[in-house]
Amino acid sequence: MEQSMLHEISDILDNLKRVKPLVHHITNYVTANDCANVVLAIGASPVMADDPEEVEEIVSLSRALVINLGTLNKRSAESMLKAGKKANELGIPVILDPVGAGATSYRSRTAEEIIQNVKLAVIRGNMSEIKAIAGLDASMRGVDASEQDVNTSKDLWYAKNICVNLSRKLGCVIAITGTTDIVSDGRKTVFIRNGDKMFSSTTGTGCMCTSLIGTFCAVCDDYVTAASAGILALCISGEKAVEKLTQTDSGSGSFRTYLIDSVFGLRGGDFIERGKIDVSI
Amino acid sequence: MEQSMLHEISDILDNLKRVKPLVHHITNYVTANDCANVVLAIGASPVMADDPEEVEEIVSLSRALVINLGTLNKRSAESMLKAGKKANELGIPVILDPVGAGATSYRSRTAEEIIQNVKLAVIRGNMSEIKAIAGLDASMRGVDASEQDVNTSKDLWYAKNICVNLSRKLGCVIAITGTTDIVSDGRKTVFIRNGDKMFSSTTGTGCMCTSLIGTFCAVCDDYVTAASAGILALCISGEKAVEKLTQTDSGSGSFRTYLIDSVFGLRGGDFIERGKIDVSI
Amino acid sequence: MEQSMLHEISDILDNLKRVKPLVHHITNYVTANDCANVVLAIGASPVMADDPEEVEEIVSLSRALVINLGTLNKRSAESMLKAGKKANELGIPVILDPVGAGATSYRSRTAEEIIQNVKLAVIRGNMSEIKAIAGLDASMRGVDASEQDVNTSKDLWYAKNICVNLSRKLGCVIAITGTTDIVSDGRKTVFIRNGDKMFSSTTGTGCMCTSLIGTFCAVCDDYVTAASAGILALCISGEKAVEKLTQTDSGSGSFRTYLIDSVFGLRGGDFIERGKIDVSI
Repeated sequence: MEQSMLHEISDILDNLKRVKPLVHHITNYVTANDCANVVLAIGASPVMADDPEEVEEIVSLSRALVINLGTLNKRSAESMLKAGKKANELGIPVILDPVGAGATSYRSRTAEEIIQNVKLAVIRGNMSEIKAIAGLDASMRGVDASEQDVNTSKDLWYAKNICVNLSRKLGCVIAITGTTDIVSDGRKTVFIRNGDKMFSSTTGTGCMCTSLIGTFCAVCDDYVTAASAGILALCISGEKAVEKLTQTDSGSGSFRTYLIDSVFGLRGGDFIERGKIDVSI
Repeated sequence: MEQSMLHEISDILDNLKRVKPLVHHITNYVTANDCANVVLAIGASPVMADDPEEVEEIVSLSRALVINLGTLNKRSAESMLKAGKKANELGIPVILDPVGAGATSYRSRTAEEIIQNVKLAVIRGNMSEIKAIAGLDASMRGVDASEQDVNTSKDLWYAKNICVNLSRKLGCVIAITGTTDIVSDGRKTVFIRNGDKMFSSTTGTGCMCTSLIGTFCAVCDDYVTAASAGILALCISGEKAVEKLTQTDSGSGSFRTYLIDSVFGLRGGDFIERGKIDVSI
Repeated sequence: MEQSMLHEISDILDNLKRVKPLVHHITNYVTANDCANVVLAIGASPVMADDPEEVEEIVSLSRALVINLGTLNKRSAESMLKAGKKANELGIPVILDPVGAGATSYRSRTAEEIIQNVKLAVIRGNMSEIKAIAGLDASMRGVDASEQDVNTSKDLWYAKNICVNLSRKLGCVIAITGTTDIVSDGRKTVFIRNGDKMFSSTTGTGCMCTSLIGTFCAVCDDYVTAASAGILALCISGEKAVEKLTQTDSGSGSFRTYLIDSVFGLRGGDFIERGKIDVSI
């Protein structure tokens, strides 16, 4: 089952590069450039626009909408709701990255409001953010996952339960990224063991992951597969970046550059050769 | 005529590095960092400021004003008009990058309002954006040029006509960038055949091009020449970046870094050695 | 005394990497990504959040607050005051980067308002900005230091006086960065002679310096030492980046990448081996 899923993802990437879908982002100013570049690198087309005056028109031209709460404000929150509702009307998938949910009541409240009013395809967050959305107690510290939330093997069973249950409750795919990434639609659950600890040394890797998930959702309406594809694309590219990093004795600055290089060079065969996934139904 | 223009541009670059003009940007948050770095790399000084409270003061200290509609909002639109009018009063050249004009009515309307109220030195856009401003039917898709608008040799005659006619109509220089770039003030038209397809794999290359045009306009009041200089500076640097890319077997992440490296290393002689232009009067 | 200070800073870096403090930034969209990456590279955790709705909660989770006036607007100015006052209540150090103070009355006025209402730990600026805050005549040109303000040996005595006097007047540490950096709390003054002229070819190096100062203030309440540590960390990393640049024959694009690489690789011993400081009491 794992091999057939990796082959399927390989085909989806080929299709993505043919279709070059436009992916609308309402996102933060810290990592917007990285998100735009990662979407271009994989072969699609990003558009960042967040004014209430135009988000409905922009989303109507797009194949997916990525909502990222990174540097949330009143104006962008209004645009997120407007664009999200319009996307729902048009059947365009909406992907939510609830950056910092649980860290402040404003972010938790806004995430909640979006979840109540917009039908989502995928929510991707770290363990703290997903716990916050599930209404569980999370030890949140800023926008990064707290260490006690990292998915050690011990925590995996617990994490899977949260993922599956939240997915069933909200009726959308939940993706929890960490040492092991977990993706579930409440029936099928995928565990991904690719990646590298360098991801936590660079800003925007979570945001880029969500952007790639959105890009795959634009061309694949099986959102568990699409979310897994987005995560695999970034994680495998990260592993390749680390290999280059080791050769050149570099650090987190070069990692960021090599990561985009690797996404740019990613081919379907990479999923098949390198993907480390487990699928449980 | 071509050689004398390239020699002239070579001299303008030397002067630019001496004068180090301050270039005021009212721009988007996706590529602001790239624009600031490209202006520094060529030897000038960028300042990004977009609050209505201060844009008049900032533009008064500057030698050129770059207006970029990338992530337009109500506040920045107000600032664009205010700063543009002030620049006109003071005789400071204003350069417009109508990012996404034609994609949404908000952007088309704002571009129109700026054109009506501010005397522009140069408008630089891709074919879709320029068509939108000319009131022609463009097949717009987000903020990138649609493929059918790319300037193949077949389309060149058509593109030149749009460029020349719009330039005459608006009384400013029009620069259409694509496979072949076209710059016209309605009398003199320059065709530029430098560049590389890697430019479309990285966000912000259009914005950086406009920033360099603005930087050359700050030290050269022949705006056809200044706009050609800005385009040539970026395109030649891009070709050098691609050469380095090939040597190092890298991708779009490294392209972005090498592009800035190449702008930093650009010398007058590069225009003369590498510039591929045709001038028609 | 110099050696003992460098040893102390070496220990503080070790502690910083253990504690991984959260550093709240209210900053500009041009260099936010660089600031986030430099804070991650040194081993701490950045959070950028600027909406009045949530800044008090965010700062309450943090160990330091960095206020940067880079792309100031009405909303962020309100947040700066709110977060600053909250930080004061909680005893969290507040670091101000008065980008462009003196260039516009809006920036000078906002800097003044923050200084009047928030007890600051450190103010870091270039000579023009610090002069503006001191109420002296500065020849300001945009957001970069004007050339006549660069600290040549001739100007050093004059610069030290401004630094010491302003520090006494405001009761906080003043850090003036330039060819020679000067840090004073009105009693102890540190001169730092590390760095490289490449710093002025890249946007955000001043902002990154302030972010590192904030990060050290998060784990060290001797703010002269913390500010010196932040400056040394960036300057020494810059020197290492330039060494790599020379080997690879690159420019300002690579400098930015190598700078983050070098901060990522920085160890306590680097301060002891490379730090060029003079301390006067």
